Amino acid sequence: MRAEIIAVGTELLLGQIVNTNAQYLSRSLAELGVDVYYQTVVGDNKERLKQAIGIARDRADLLVFTGGLGPTLDDLTRDALAEFLGLGIELHEPTMAKIMEMFANRGGAFVESNRRQALLVEGATPLRNDTGLAVGNALNVDGTCYLLLPGPPREMKPMFDNDGTGWLKEQLGPALMLHSVMLKFAGIGESGLEDLLIDLIRDQQDPTIAPYAKEGEVAIRVSTKATDSEEASRKLEGVLTEIRGRTVAYLYAEEDIPIEAAIVRLLSEKQQTLTLAESCTGGMVSELITTIPGSAVVFLGGIVTYSNQMKMQQVGVPAELLEGDGAPGAISSETAAAMAEGMRLAADSDFALSITGNAGPAAAEDKPVGLVYVGLAERERETRVEKLQLSGDREGIRLRATKRALYMLWLSLTGRG
Amino acid sequence: MRAEIIAVGTELLLGQIVNTNAQYLSRSLAELGVDVYYQTVVGDNKERLKQAIGIARDRADLLVFTGGLGPTLDDLTRDALAEFLGLGIELHEPTMAKIMEMFANRGGAFVESNRRQALLVEGATPLRNDTGLAVGNALNVDGTCYLLLPGPPREMKPMFDNDGTGWLKEQLGPALMLHSVMLKFAGIGESGLEDLLIDLIRDQQDPTIAPYAKEGEVAIRVSTKATDSEEASRKLEGVLTEIRGRTVAYLYAEEDIPIEAAIVRLLSEKQQTLTLAESCTGGMVSELITTIPGSAVVFLGGIVTYSNQMKMQQVGVPAELLEGDGAPGAISSETAAAMAEGMRLAADSDFALSITGNAGPAAAEDKPVGLVYVGLAERERETRVEKLQLSGDREGIRLRATKRALYMLWLSLTGRG
Repeated sequence: MRAEIIAVGTELLLGQIVNTNAQYLSRSLAELGVDVYYQTVVGDNKERLKQAIGIARDRADLLVFTGGLGPTLDDLTRDALAEFLGLGIELHEPTMAKIMEMFANRGGAFVESNRRQALLVEGATPLRNDTGLAVGNALNVDGTCYLLLPGPPREMKPMFDNDGTGWLKEQLGPALMLHSVMLKFAGIGESGLEDLLIDLIRDQQDPTIAPYAKEGEVAIRVSTKATDSEEASRKLEGVLTEIRGRTVAYLYAEEDIPIEAAIVRLLSEKQQTLTLAESCTGGMVSELITTIPGSAVVFLGGIVTYSNQMKMQQVGVPAELLEGDGAPGAISSETAAAMAEGMRLAADSDFALSITGNAGPAAAEDKPVGLVYVGLAERERETRVEKLQLSGDREGIRLRATKRALYMLWLSLTGRG
Repeated sequence: MRAEIIAVGTELLLGQIVNTNAQYLSRSLAELGVDVYYQTVVGDNKERLKQAIGIARDRADLLVFTGGLGPTLDDLTRDALAEFLGLGIELHEPTMAKIMEMFANRGGAFVESNRRQALLVEGATPLRNDTGLAVGNALNVDGTCYLLLPGPPREMKPMFDNDGTGWLKEQLGPALMLHSVMLKFAGIGESGLEDLLIDLIRDQQDPTIAPYAKEGEVAIRVSTKATDSEEASRKLEGVLTEIRGRTVAYLYAEEDIPIEAAIVRLLSEKQQTLTLAESCTGGMVSELITTIPGSAVVFLGGIVTYSNQMKMQQVGVPAELLEGDGAPGAISSETAAAMAEGMRLAADSDFALSITGNAGPAAAEDKPVGLVYVGLAERERETRVEKLQLSGDREGIRLRATKRALYMLWLSLTGRG
């Protein structure tokens, strides 16, 4: 099945928002074994929308629309498709009842235009909207499938994942579905990882091996098509075992989670605690750790020692490390060690990470931009410091230093380093 | 002039990357007074690409391509366009020399496929690539303009902004260009701001008034078309004065900067210092402040007091506030005040902000999700605490609490509160 994704909305053509829906749907459709051949964006204009539908129907069997199902007169997708197909419009009573109930609960007067959100193209299967009002539409006309989804991602995603995917699977019949495992790596770059796996990547057939890189993270997706997850597991296992064996020092998860989530999980299992002393990262490690629900049990807190005064007062870095001729200075291995040890002792945590360095834009203490020291103090173990020379802009350096510090802790928590 | 943006790349159709280029170009073209009617994404397939070019030429006068200019055989944009137009391909000598020089400097052997990056469609104007190798192409054939830009945003953006925009302006001739001023607001939501400006928004003609909302930030863009910036200023001034008058308690900048940048600037001007004591935001305020270059001068540091132990030890919150029957607890006005005051005194800073609350996902201390207290301690001024009841998920609550705390500080720094 060939698909085209049609996003409807003038705000996309003005560049006010990014079309993240197209990415989400493309990835989801690939997992269902559906090939996306085109993505199109068209404005809130019925004639141009109908022309776009005509072009898409000639080159695809599945048209997935996002946007244009809302209450205003600008919301034209349903009307345009109905006109194009020569079909009428009908009211979906359960959605209408839901809309009326919402207005009653709010105590406001019913606004007539909201009725539009309960309309269906004649004969369409309604798709439930658990996070909004507008009902989705699914219909198959002469072998071409049409899916109408809302524009806001928080409405579109659950609708597609639930009723949308269910309906599509019925249209596809018993087919090969894409099954994949996401492997997440830390402490290694994209090219380094490719070097380790070059023969596997080069000779791949089935399963496929696709590398992904985001700022500070590297991932590999291993995929195969199969009728069920048991068959998929059998097909994936050989390649996964080979990759695991080669990447044991870097592979921190076999699901799409960030390394901070893996760390919170490991600390929770071991009932151990963490504190942080950050300088150039300015609280980024702390911020990432506390995005993880449940981090409060294992993360006691951190100190952002942006000034030398804070380094001395709050984590007890000796003044002679920071000031005076010949002192190593704030950006030094000695200071990183003192920050980690001082923080760990002050809070009596099992681990303390420290980061001090120059994230730019200008040299500081005559230390070059990108020079960063990461320290790790542990209960009953010698403190270690790693020296990094990172490249990139200020945010890139901060992020890479943060991820590197988390990697250092992960190595220790898993007995790897 | 009507434009269509055509992104070429199978990775977009697989959902591996988001088409941020389309947003950037749409916004940039709008500023040049060019209307974007369609955005299209097509894979690395020459026949389908040629078909897409045909469709686009029938409905647009300007086709802007991104992607497909690289060295591999998958990079087909140039070839497809040349075949479509019946034109040949020619070598751009300066780019070829640059590529050879790069290989010589790296000390590696020249890889023949890189020659492809120096090719132009016959007769095309070359567009300089300052951040990569592939040369861009610009050509006008029978009144239709074609711009070929690289796919990576870090190459595409400077090429478009420099040579691309220059070439386009020549094609457009002396035209009305869009001039706009971005107004940034804090401490008020999108609907609250619209209420204040409802008559201006409803009756707008020229200048236009467009609200934008991102998580935790609200902005308004006031725009007009004019031949030069002097004429534009004259046309914009009336509306700007009216908006300024109505929004004095919220308008923190007349350029697109976050409130943390405005705060670092104000503190620098006043030579005053800031510290932070964060609980539920986990270092987010600190992280945002330190994204701003130059923050080191005014931001001494912060403490993330995630545990009660840290609240007591590091910022001196009295135990009786936190523990025991009838104690207000960590999530309370009293604790927020004690955190801010304790932090300010410990570091002797001019200001200290504190945040304590429940960001979810579950109730804590029997306090509901979203209940947050923000404290502000100042030298020689009484400490103030604001109680917030925020909605949204964990990250949303953390972000809104962070922005609210920064707003409270901005009010004080500007003598507004």
